[in-house]
Amino acid sequence: MNIVLLSGGSGKRLWPLSNDIRSKQFIKFFKQEDGSYESMVQRVYRQIKKVDSDATVTIATSKTQISAIHNQLGDEVGISVEPCRRDTFPAIALATCYLADVMKVDPEESVVVCPVDPYVDDAYFEALKGLSDQADKGEANLVLMGIEPTYPSEKYGYIIPESAEQTASVKTFKEKPTAAVAEEYIAQGALWNGGVFVYKLKYVIEIAHKLIDFTDYYDLFAKYDSLQKISFDYAVVEKEDKIQVQRFSGEWKDLGTWNTLTEAMEESVIGNGTMSEDCSNVHIVNEMDVPVLAMGLHDVVISASPEGILVSDKEQSSYIKPFVDNFEQQIMFAEKSWGSFKVMDVEDKSMTIKVTLNEGHSMNYHSHKHRDEVWVVISGEGKTIVDGMEQNVSAGDVITMSAGCRHTITAISELKLIEVQLGDAISVEDKQKFELEL
Amino acid sequence: MNIVLLSGGSGKRLWPLSNDIRSKQFIKFFKQEDGSYESMVQRVYRQIKKVDSDATVTIATSKTQISAIHNQLGDEVGISVEPCRRDTFPAIALATCYLADVMKVDPEESVVVCPVDPYVDDAYFEALKGLSDQADKGEANLVLMGIEPTYPSEKYGYIIPESAEQTASVKTFKEKPTAAVAEEYIAQGALWNGGVFVYKLKYVIEIAHKLIDFTDYYDLFAKYDSLQKISFDYAVVEKEDKIQVQRFSGEWKDLGTWNTLTEAMEESVIGNGTMSEDCSNVHIVNEMDVPVLAMGLHDVVISASPEGILVSDKEQSSYIKPFVDNFEQQIMFAEKSWGSFKVMDVEDKSMTIKVTLNEGHSMNYHSHKHRDEVWVVISGEGKTIVDGMEQNVSAGDVITMSAGCRHTITAISELKLIEVQLGDAISVEDKQKFELEL
Repeated sequence: MNIVLLSGGSGKRLWPLSNDIRSKQFIKFFKQEDGSYESMVQRVYRQIKKVDSDATVTIATSKTQISAIHNQLGDEVGISVEPCRRDTFPAIALATCYLADVMKVDPEESVVVCPVDPYVDDAYFEALKGLSDQADKGEANLVLMGIEPTYPSEKYGYIIPESAEQTASVKTFKEKPTAAVAEEYIAQGALWNGGVFVYKLKYVIEIAHKLIDFTDYYDLFAKYDSLQKISFDYAVVEKEDKIQVQRFSGEWKDLGTWNTLTEAMEESVIGNGTMSEDCSNVHIVNEMDVPVLAMGLHDVVISASPEGILVSDKEQSSYIKPFVDNFEQQIMFAEKSWGSFKVMDVEDKSMTIKVTLNEGHSMNYHSHKHRDEVWVVISGEGKTIVDGMEQNVSAGDVITMSAGCRHTITAISELKLIEVQLGDAISVEDKQKFELEL
Repeated sequence: MNIVLLSGGSGKRLWPLSNDIRSKQFIKFFKQEDGSYESMVQRVYRQIKKVDSDATVTIATSKTQISAIHNQLGDEVGISVEPCRRDTFPAIALATCYLADVMKVDPEESVVVCPVDPYVDDAYFEALKGLSDQADKGEANLVLMGIEPTYPSEKYGYIIPESAEQTASVKTFKEKPTAAVAEEYIAQGALWNGGVFVYKLKYVIEIAHKLIDFTDYYDLFAKYDSLQKISFDYAVVEKEDKIQVQRFSGEWKDLGTWNTLTEAMEESVIGNGTMSEDCSNVHIVNEMDVPVLAMGLHDVVISASPEGILVSDKEQSSYIKPFVDNFEQQIMFAEKSWGSFKVMDVEDKSMTIKVTLNEGHSMNYHSHKHRDEVWVVISGEGKTIVDGMEQNVSAGDVITMSAGCRHTITAISELKLIEVQLGDAISVEDKQKFELEL
């Protein structure tokens, strides 16, 4: 099975854990049998590999997610990087060309496109295999997944099939309806549209060439920012007559808000949290080092991270976005390809951060125009290069770098350091990268 | 008026703002007209000075509160330091001897002893003056304050006076009753016991000499830890026949819990906090740098500090103490006589703290056996002394100190620094102090 996971945007609806640079799919909410936690994307990837160990998995995403993907899934997974956001048709076309031109997948093979964040059991991925097999037959140009509705939801689009058979032709599509209209659809045998598209690779390549003037993946990538924003539904699905739907009746949840997410959590507390016995339906997700204490609460989610603290009625948690948009958000924590950093202190003319470098990783070789920096290594072994001079460092070593001075550090073993930045104009933009001249 | 304020213990009931070393009376909850905030002790001290600008104010407290008292009230205020906790009779006897032997107060003068944390208006302190004047007359050996009850409280002891006059002899005392019994007392004209004791200085000195073998204040201080734990009520009040009570009907609140404290707060948010419009009776007290967002909550208090995060139903907030007692509490923030510090990061073999030194102040000259330290000055001007060597420092300067090396820093202007401690056994106990040999 060739599977493309669409890994969406920033998702402030799970603030303070998700933010502009950390998407919800990378947050480790789900406890595994061995006691460790996995993220949505790790869970989905693990499930796919369990159902089909030979599956080719490609994640269609933006540049900002590459580090997190490699940190969480390793280097085996394919990544189709969207240079900018251009809606689902360009994203799927680019990922499909990536499969054809980079991964050399046969144009006759089927491709399964699905969201990166469904909360499902393994049966869902078995069903995807079924869809892929169905597309292989060539009876239709597109095969979709229809989820059997459990209630007249207003959140989903509906697919009305020609028959109640497991695989049926699609009669018509319906936009998100009111609950009353949804009940009518369901009476007609309608299914929720699961956002899954299955097709033979050549099918989308041909449509892409009709709609966009390009030669191959590399050309499409180069002109990506000039592409029109258009959805796959609008560009492809609505114009296609030969569409089938396969029904799926297993567990399927959309974990977009704290309310739905906490329903899927195994435990009521992740991190350092305590609650009194009279709390009911309370969840604590605490990424900070200090304790959270909840007393006498009902139907509340508490989440604390270096970005902030949310305390919300579960129902109301769907409405946090406009509030969060108003916060002047300094990124206080980030996972990078080389490790992570956490902002510990911000003053007018200084900023202090904690940097963790993964074993074998380095920062870019870089300098700053407007700030001096001091590193104090607190654990691990590493090697610094400062203006071309190499030095081995370990806990207790101090490295001072004036503005303009080029510097990097490589972790021989996992290395942690405190970085103090000093200057009148401290900014993430103030960074010049250089090739190492060694 | 000579007034002794009894400044009590740690008060975990306002966790995470109060803790083992930071008592509730020093937290700045109360907004003043100029927009700044004052603490309970600042509010009470200001009110006393307004009512009686010549008042001699002495705070009876433990050593741990001295820094906070001087920071908040300046150096004018007297402090009677209890070397250890020995209940109210020894504390009041010690403070009374302090007034006699250190402050040279005339034995014929009256002394007003009152709690440090009543939330009252100026009329309360006018009433204390009235009690002091009454004690001056010598009609009774003790004059107490009786608060006119507003409801049959189970939280207070009751005083039953001989008559309903403004000043009356005390008929009898009653322990904290049930609500039903309290109603009976009130029907008999009972008053709440306000915890105020007024007497002529010589009266308590004489009783102290009867009960304790000592010569003067200095001797009593020296043998303080051998004294029996006994309350002033038990040792003095219950054995005295000549007691009067003066009634007080003004505002009087006991701000011991988040529930009562938030009732006295002018604003619903202190610090960085936002709440949705559908929140009702919600208070946010946030001492952290990051935002707190409250959505759809009712009757809830949220408090965040470097020690932890409390989210509690207001009623239930009275019951946090046993939970907080269970937390392994590392002190993450402290106000000192010279400034303050905040723990920013704790690892196995390192700890990183931010230190703020007030202008003109110094640390002790000290060394550590088991850790190295690095200072990075982030703002201000100062002078370091390291193993006897002086150096002027300012932002960007780095000072490294190996274990055993003696060091101090003086702030010429307010000075902030990041201190990284490195070692296998980092502990607050690992500190040797030295006289400066300059």
